[in-house]
Amino acid sequence: MSVSAQPRTPLSPTPRSTLNRSKERARGDRADLDAVLDAAFLCHLGVLLGGTPVVIPTIYGRDGDTVYLHGSTGAGNLRAALAGEVSLAVTLVDGLVYARAAMHFSANFRSAVVHGRPVEVTDPDERLRALRIISEHAAPGAWDTVRPPNKKEMAATLVIALDLTEASVKVRTGDPRDEPDDIAAGTAWAGVLPLRQVWDAPIPSADLSPGIDIPDHVRNRYAEPAIR
Amino acid sequence: MSVSAQPRTPLSPTPRSTLNRSKERARGDRADLDAVLDAAFLCHLGVLLGGTPVVIPTIYGRDGDTVYLHGSTGAGNLRAALAGEVSLAVTLVDGLVYARAAMHFSANFRSAVVHGRPVEVTDPDERLRALRIISEHAAPGAWDTVRPPNKKEMAATLVIALDLTEASVKVRTGDPRDEPDDIAAGTAWAGVLPLRQVWDAPIPSADLSPGIDIPDHVRNRYAEPAIR
Repeated sequence: MSVSAQPRTPLSPTPRSTLNRSKERARGDRADLDAVLDAAFLCHLGVLLGGTPVVIPTIYGRDGDTVYLHGSTGAGNLRAALAGEVSLAVTLVDGLVYARAAMHFSANFRSAVVHGRPVEVTDPDERLRALRIISEHAAPGAWDTVRPPNKKEMAATLVIALDLTEASVKVRTGDPRDEPDDIAAGTAWAGVLPLRQVWDAPIPSADLSPGIDIPDHVRNRYAEPAIR
Repeated sequence: MSVSAQPRTPLSPTPRSTLNRSKERARGDRADLDAVLDAAFLCHLGVLLGGTPVVIPTIYGRDGDTVYLHGSTGAGNLRAALAGEVSLAVTLVDGLVYARAAMHFSANFRSAVVHGRPVEVTDPDERLRALRIISEHAAPGAWDTVRPPNKKEMAATLVIALDLTEASVKVRTGDPRDEPDDIAAGTAWAGVLPLRQVWDAPIPSADLSPGIDIPDHVRNRYAEPAIR
């Protein structure tokens, strides 16, 4: 993950977003946070529902210092997100780390966790813009080629915004960190088995009208790594 | 996801594990839950810490009706998991669903969310067995080839168990579900862009002693889909 070309702006960590363990994996620059958020499109949102935590997988989009989420106005879990603090985690696993000792097995990964109190987006223009940002984050180039949301769809949609001011980023790369005695013993293989996501060939919908080609914004994703 | 060969045992859903929306995506069989849990190795655990939800990415293993997790005894987040209810989510994204209308974009996925109150595993034999189950879940075949945990490592490790009695499973597959008017208009492509995880060629550790070949349990994962 190269961030050298970006201006360095420190994250402002709070006690709960400060890593107490494996500090060497911590990344304290705002560009590192953006890089993780921009590389994935699925997050896991933790909300408090009836006094207990509930984790919801959902897609998201980022615009500057804001993460947008959306869902149905009837979704109790997303409504619960507006009642208090939430935690939003984005995790990309880049490989499994095989060590000489069981307890040194690990994973190479990029991880961001954002904490904060989300707000409902109510301004009509910002609501539409947020939906476009979420859509373009998961399916770049598609928004302008499809029917935009109508009034009924907009009325049924809840859009929420979460500020990025409180977050932590962790990144692990490279070889296992084995004990010297285990390395010297030389009895087990050690290394990394890289993992990545790939798109496969697009599958047209069974009800697609004849003569509609696969657009470039879909075709060009295939054979590219899905996750940078 | 084929579960037809398995005996059908209904999940026992509670209100919070009963889907109120998109009910057609709900799967109510215990075998469906096992299939999702066994296909992935990363989960997102939601715990309550200082009154607010915190989401932690971590690996896990399953043994029958129990999910095992582990971490450092110094990890406050995992300690917090033992203080109350948790939510554990496992999500596999199988593709992006391109529709003719922005609000009908979707993802094909397999998702499981488990709710419950975890307990610390204290019996020495079960602790070691749980660590083996977690390791073999992420890195099958490796445990017996590496140095097992020593006393110091075991003392520094927290192992927790979560029962699978309260869970929900959602699966989405196939084409977009567009409005008839949008399908008839025929102005946009619609279909699925499949997504999957793949292993790349193993990379030996820089400090690996000469003459140690890549073992079959690592080599054989490469070129196989990582996520079934």
